Amino acid sequence: MTLIDALRHAVDDASLLLSDDQRSARARDTWMRSQIPLSAGEAIVAPVAVVAPASAAELSEAVKVCRAHGAPMIPRGGGSGVVGGVLASPDSVVLSTERMDGLRALSSVDLTASFGAGTNGLVAEERVQADGLTIGHWPQSIELSTVGGWVATRASGQYSTAYGNIEDVVLSLEAVLADGTVYRGRDTPRAAAGPDLRQLLLGSEGTLGIVTDVTFSLREQPEPGVRQAFHFGEFADGLEVIRRVMRAGWRPPVVRLYDGRESWRHFREQMPKGDSMLIFLHEGPPGLAPLEAAAVADLCAAGGGSAAPAEAVDAWFAHRNTVPSWDELLQSGVVADTIEIATDWSRLPGLYTAVVEALNRVPGVVAASAHTSHAYRSGANLYFTLAATPSDPGQYAATYDACWDAAMTAADGLGAGLAHHHGIGRVRRDWMAAEVCAGGVAMLRAVKSALDPDGLLNPGVLIP
Amino acid sequence: MTLIDALRHAVDDASLLLSDDQRSARARDTWMRSQIPLSAGEAIVAPVAVVAPASAAELSEAVKVCRAHGAPMIPRGGGSGVVGGVLASPDSVVLSTERMDGLRALSSVDLTASFGAGTNGLVAEERVQADGLTIGHWPQSIELSTVGGWVATRASGQYSTAYGNIEDVVLSLEAVLADGTVYRGRDTPRAAAGPDLRQLLLGSEGTLGIVTDVTFSLREQPEPGVRQAFHFGEFADGLEVIRRVMRAGWRPPVVRLYDGRESWRHFREQMPKGDSMLIFLHEGPPGLAPLEAAAVADLCAAGGGSAAPAEAVDAWFAHRNTVPSWDELLQSGVVADTIEIATDWSRLPGLYTAVVEALNRVPGVVAASAHTSHAYRSGANLYFTLAATPSDPGQYAATYDACWDAAMTAADGLGAGLAHHHGIGRVRRDWMAAEVCAGGVAMLRAVKSALDPDGLLNPGVLIP
Repeated sequence: MTLIDALRHAVDDASLLLSDDQRSARARDTWMRSQIPLSAGEAIVAPVAVVAPASAAELSEAVKVCRAHGAPMIPRGGGSGVVGGVLASPDSVVLSTERMDGLRALSSVDLTASFGAGTNGLVAEERVQADGLTIGHWPQSIELSTVGGWVATRASGQYSTAYGNIEDVVLSLEAVLADGTVYRGRDTPRAAAGPDLRQLLLGSEGTLGIVTDVTFSLREQPEPGVRQAFHFGEFADGLEVIRRVMRAGWRPPVVRLYDGRESWRHFREQMPKGDSMLIFLHEGPPGLAPLEAAAVADLCAAGGGSAAPAEAVDAWFAHRNTVPSWDELLQSGVVADTIEIATDWSRLPGLYTAVVEALNRVPGVVAASAHTSHAYRSGANLYFTLAATPSDPGQYAATYDACWDAAMTAADGLGAGLAHHHGIGRVRRDWMAAEVCAGGVAMLRAVKSALDPDGLLNPGVLIP
Repeated sequence: MTLIDALRHAVDDASLLLSDDQRSARARDTWMRSQIPLSAGEAIVAPVAVVAPASAAELSEAVKVCRAHGAPMIPRGGGSGVVGGVLASPDSVVLSTERMDGLRALSSVDLTASFGAGTNGLVAEERVQADGLTIGHWPQSIELSTVGGWVATRASGQYSTAYGNIEDVVLSLEAVLADGTVYRGRDTPRAAAGPDLRQLLLGSEGTLGIVTDVTFSLREQPEPGVRQAFHFGEFADGLEVIRRVMRAGWRPPVVRLYDGRESWRHFREQMPKGDSMLIFLHEGPPGLAPLEAAAVADLCAAGGGSAAPAEAVDAWFAHRNTVPSWDELLQSGVVADTIEIATDWSRLPGLYTAVVEALNRVPGVVAASAHTSHAYRSGANLYFTLAATPSDPGQYAATYDACWDAAMTAADGLGAGLAHHHGIGRVRRDWMAAEVCAGGVAMLRAVKSALDPDGLLNPGVLIP
């Protein structure tokens, strides 16, 4: 029996998507690097089939069939990833979570909600908001991504400084492993019962299992918060103020500092050219937001900041998820990407300078800038944006690769973390040893061999 | 070459502890069940040797020797565990972290401090307090336990409701794996770089590796906080108020509610008999503690609570870490233990009743009671204390086992989590499938086989 015939036997007709359009539309994520040949007119490489099961049990059957036929399996959610975590080969089967969607359970008493992994992020958030609750996880991709994709990629949201990253809002998971086994944890708020097995799936990028259901620990929707903004002569002065805010124990959901170049792009109405804009959203139970806002304003003033109109924050909210498509950029001759990394406070200013300089040294680069958007007690992230305009379209891919190599080399040289929240995918895969050390790669390979001995789950991703 | 001779070659003389006293003193933890035969006069089973290396490199050599000789390895920190996670067999080598101790690095700017895994918990806390900082992790065992033990057991502290459990305060780890490989993560505040490998060690109870160094993300020491207490006619009414406090978004470091029996034991000066006492400590940046305390007082009043003197909280602080030894209890004819579990809010009142009733049905049980000490958005823990006085000392072990069986069966029947923060050890090992499901046990076994194919690291613990 062929693979396709075996899949026909194993899953519902509605779960098997075999047309050219269906397969092509699910062949990849939103990686700039894989867009380059497509924008140049090359044909997309489609998988042999797409399976979109309606349940974990049906997915389990499909996984067993793929394994029996030695077919590579490419799990896929919303396809909004930007590091090449989804890229079909001609012999592969894409396992799409799109039909495992919708609310499965909600408890307002326990502040819990379970969704099928393929549920769109904004749909999930709006569903719990209808009950006065919030997931509190706001990735820029929320309109495109799925709750299962959030887990598989270890995503962060724009409100993370108060509400945490995806690992802090997930209560329990269900997943299908490479042998078809279904794992499902208990909805327990905390356990000391061996290693936290959810963590093997959080960030696994489809290499260790396929997430089928996500249960969140929710929050009550807060009152409208307090918005305020300040500008600083130097980016480093803004970083120092954020460090002091975190050290004091305040936790504004939104804390974002833009360097001079990005600030002038977004906030030229609200500050002089060259300054760095720092915006805050404060939320919380009654009385907390104004108390925190006043304390943070004092810290900003003491750190050399000048108050800016709160419209700066409104402008960010209005446009926060608007980005041009890679194809639009490539058609106008621009190679671009974003690179997010993280490190401790004492390395951050030097890291900012080193990466911007390294990117600017790459031939063809016309802009390199950064902001920080996720702060912690011991450090923060930096989110770099680069643009290059190589004169020859034949140089697009090489320019792209050179930018990543420059940024990763600079970050590694300073001992910084190489990946804050976009994940590893293909673009960072060969930097994993720098991130988690040789011993960490050995651990990861051992776990991979144990859970997926044939190496069929998302080969080529994450594990060097 | 014998095992001992090979160890002599591999490690410093000072690292090899071979006397009877040295081996006997490190043969076990503080499990009541393993104390029963000792209190009855049986001899302790000592390991063949204790290795107490001064560095990860030296430990790595010792591990390689043990592996080459097929010797079971029993990692040991402070020995304060209460679930049988450390129990030497006559052919085993205890790997003690006691000489890998002390501060290795501290950055007040980054709020980071690294300690050797064998550093005593209180010594570590006092060291960072000398710089105006705090780890913020206060297990009842803080005077006995080690920072590496906190990680290996997935410990919780008494301030966890605001400051999190051990997984929330650890920034990075170093560990020696079963083949002698040294794993060391970067000091990065957050990463999306595959599964979080620290989580394979957090809670691994020595079965997947030996933690050798712990880096914490610290906090600034807060101002003295606000203490307040309230008593309720019903335990369930107190639970409901804690749920509302968490739901509102407040996070007092200390939130503890005692049932009628425990309240009368601890707080009879401050409330009428039968009531349940709820105590709070509020801390935070300037202005937060009084704001939170006032809001929480309102929630307590609205929930039927009556204000109690703040001395109730003072009394708890004064005596919080004072407990009788198992041997003292056994010598007076008492078999006792504590059993901590967790579940969501809607199951908590029923779980409390079910476990207390199940314990009271065990022949010989004279007291069963509980408090809650760790609250989350979606639920909380329950910490049961039991005492039994079997007339025949020959029944001590059977009574102990019957109590655990009763409590675990009751919790499992309600779908609750079976282990909040003491870990699995030997006492809960055969309940793991109930906690993490059959698929979870399969994942854990696969990881164990991959990282420790000979099964030499702490055999008999955690993995059923």
